[in-house]
Amino acid sequence: MGDGNLLAGIDPSASAELFEDLLRLPGVRIERIVSTGQASPPDFWYDQGWAEWVLVIAGSAAVQFEDEAELRALGPGDYLFIAPNRRHRVAWTDMGQPTVWLAVHIGEEKP
Amino acid sequence: MGDGNLLAGIDPSASAELFEDLLRLPGVRIERIVSTGQASPPDFWYDQGWAEWVLVIAGSAAVQFEDEAELRALGPGDYLFIAPNRRHRVAWTDMGQPTVWLAVHIGEEKP
Repeated sequence: MGDGNLLAGIDPSASAELFEDLLRLPGVRIERIVSTGQASPPDFWYDQGWAEWVLVIAGSAAVQFEDEAELRALGPGDYLFIAPNRRHRVAWTDMGQPTVWLAVHIGEEKP
Repeated sequence: MGDGNLLAGIDPSASAELFEDLLRLPGVRIERIVSTGQASPPDFWYDQGWAEWVLVIAGSAAVQFEDEAELRALGPGDYLFIAPNRRHRVAWTDMGQPTVWLAVHIGEEKP
């Protein structure tokens, strides 16, 4: 764990999202997520007790915050901070190509 | 701080490397580095007491570890873990285009 390429091993025809830890240290987890058109269920909200910073590497997606009217559309290079317990969902991901996310989870484990 | 685009605001003709914090939380700092052909001085080694995870977003570069014979050449999507106190330097960065790095510094601040 630790060295590799974010764009390697991607199956554009995968039916499920792929989640893979790239690094895990006390207090920090770096994860690759590959989406192939998936979205969160309509009434589902992520509500997590730690901070998350996400970056779109390839493809496109939109994140919806419960407390905002507008979606946050994200393309390559766009990053977004998700504060602890800020309810959010993935409104859509690219149907035409894989969306590769980098997610940095901060303070996930409780001491 | 927190939301933006990693590829924005890049000056390909910059004479110096650009370092910019994108997120700073207890125990974690996420930084963008833009290199335009710079390298570490020939006998210079970084020797830092915390872990670092670097990802090349655009351009290319090579990292040299003091304890390895071969350089680690990095292109878009390549990531590398640098353990605390593992001495390293930047052997070269792309002369033809900006190299955009994402660096995640973990455990930098001492409690």
